[in-house]
Amino acid sequence: MAELTHMIDSEVFLAFSTYATIIVLKMMLMSPMTGYFRLTRKAFANQEDTSLTSSTEDKKKMVRVDPDVERVRRCHQNDLENIIPFVVIGLLYTLTGPDLSTALLHFRVFVGSRLCHTVAYVLPLPQPSRALAFLTGLVTTSSMAYRVLITALYL
Amino acid sequence: MAELTHMIDSEVFLAFSTYATIIVLKMMLMSPMTGYFRLTRKAFANQEDTSLTSSTEDKKKMVRVDPDVERVRRCHQNDLENIIPFVVIGLLYTLTGPDLSTALLHFRVFVGSRLCHTVAYVLPLPQPSRALAFLTGLVTTSSMAYRVLITALYL
Amino acid sequence: MAELTHMIDSEVFLAFSTYATIIVLKMMLMSPMTGYFRLTRKAFANQEDTSLTSSTEDKKKMVRVDPDVERVRRCHQNDLENIIPFVVIGLLYTLTGPDLSTALLHFRVFVGSRLCHTVAYVLPLPQPSRALAFLTGLVTTSSMAYRVLITALYL
Repeated sequence: MAELTHMIDSEVFLAFSTYATIIVLKMMLMSPMTGYFRLTRKAFANQEDTSLTSSTEDKKKMVRVDPDVERVRRCHQNDLENIIPFVVIGLLYTLTGPDLSTALLHFRVFVGSRLCHTVAYVLPLPQPSRALAFLTGLVTTSSMAYRVLITALYL
Repeated sequence: MAELTHMIDSEVFLAFSTYATIIVLKMMLMSPMTGYFRLTRKAFANQEDTSLTSSTEDKKKMVRVDPDVERVRRCHQNDLENIIPFVVIGLLYTLTGPDLSTALLHFRVFVGSRLCHTVAYVLPLPQPSRALAFLTGLVTTSSMAYRVLITALYL
Repeated sequence: MAELTHMIDSEVFLAFSTYATIIVLKMMLMSPMTGYFRLTRKAFANQEDTSLTSSTEDKKKMVRVDPDVERVRRCHQNDLENIIPFVVIGLLYTLTGPDLSTALLHFRVFVGSRLCHTVAYVLPLPQPSRALAFLTGLVTTSSMAYRVLITALYL
């Protein structure tokens, strides 16, 4: 791997920091979005949470499952399953010293694919739009993992 | 970003390593806690798991959902959704060379807020205690993300 | 902590990169495996996903929960809860400058335990095989966390 003192101030590392932060922030936004749907749909997971709404309806009935809330939660879960591997493998990939243009291509395609995935999941758009967005992200991360393995392989 | 050779041995990096390890260990403890509740409540997710208890009751009925187990699992899931973004963004934040006192403030507030969140979720405490603990953590991570983006922005 | 310029090109770092990438790739494979079970069992989470199968059966009935799909999903969730802490704590552990042989032992035991865990979960094997694989991974990560804390402790 390239010497880190030179790597860490490189444009590749700055680009990784930027795209990783943006897509992790996107993932974090799914929590308030779930909260918004829970409050507007009056569908909570815990009895004590029903006190957060000022509604005068029967609070016991508000501990229930709502399809819109579950949709946002599945989107969030898919983010966890895909964005965190991207961050881990992307960091190691950055330390292998890739070309700036190649690295930017990987980061931009991944972040773009996950933004499309969220839109396709929450609206929802007809399939296979979400499946394609998901696969694009998976292939991008796998491509970075391939470079890490051929560069750093030490078993 | 600051030169890493100087950063990595800095007090900010040591502080990040300490607080990140503590809060990730806390998150890992949720797994044994779930196991403890599954064993004591006799509520398992898999048929083969019922052999782990010496109870002579009907083992088929032990594959069931228990409210206490689900509460711990939701707490664990919320940890995954919030502690991992903290670790990712906190590492990049550490590399931007923040003041030690500012960095310590972020790390301590985040770790404190997540400890409060777990207590508020598992006991449970009345709302909005858990909501406030959750929001405090979210704002802390967002504040670090803001510094990463203004320091490293490279699109 | 050891000076990073020397650490990052060290064999410990290369070994960490290799094992972390392998086990994160394994975790990512759980997504296509879930998709495969959803398609073959005709059990989808979203109404729009039923268009991905060419089956002529009633598509409304395909939005359902299937035990095999849920088993793979629980395995994936357990991976998230254990592999990500390993990656975070393993990276910090690598930067504390451990012996190569000790580090390799940790990385190999962890990766091996998680491969056993997946086999034990998906087949499934009788308990306590899965419980032992899970505990082995937990103890390995905790051992690395202990070294991070005694090396870097800064509260």
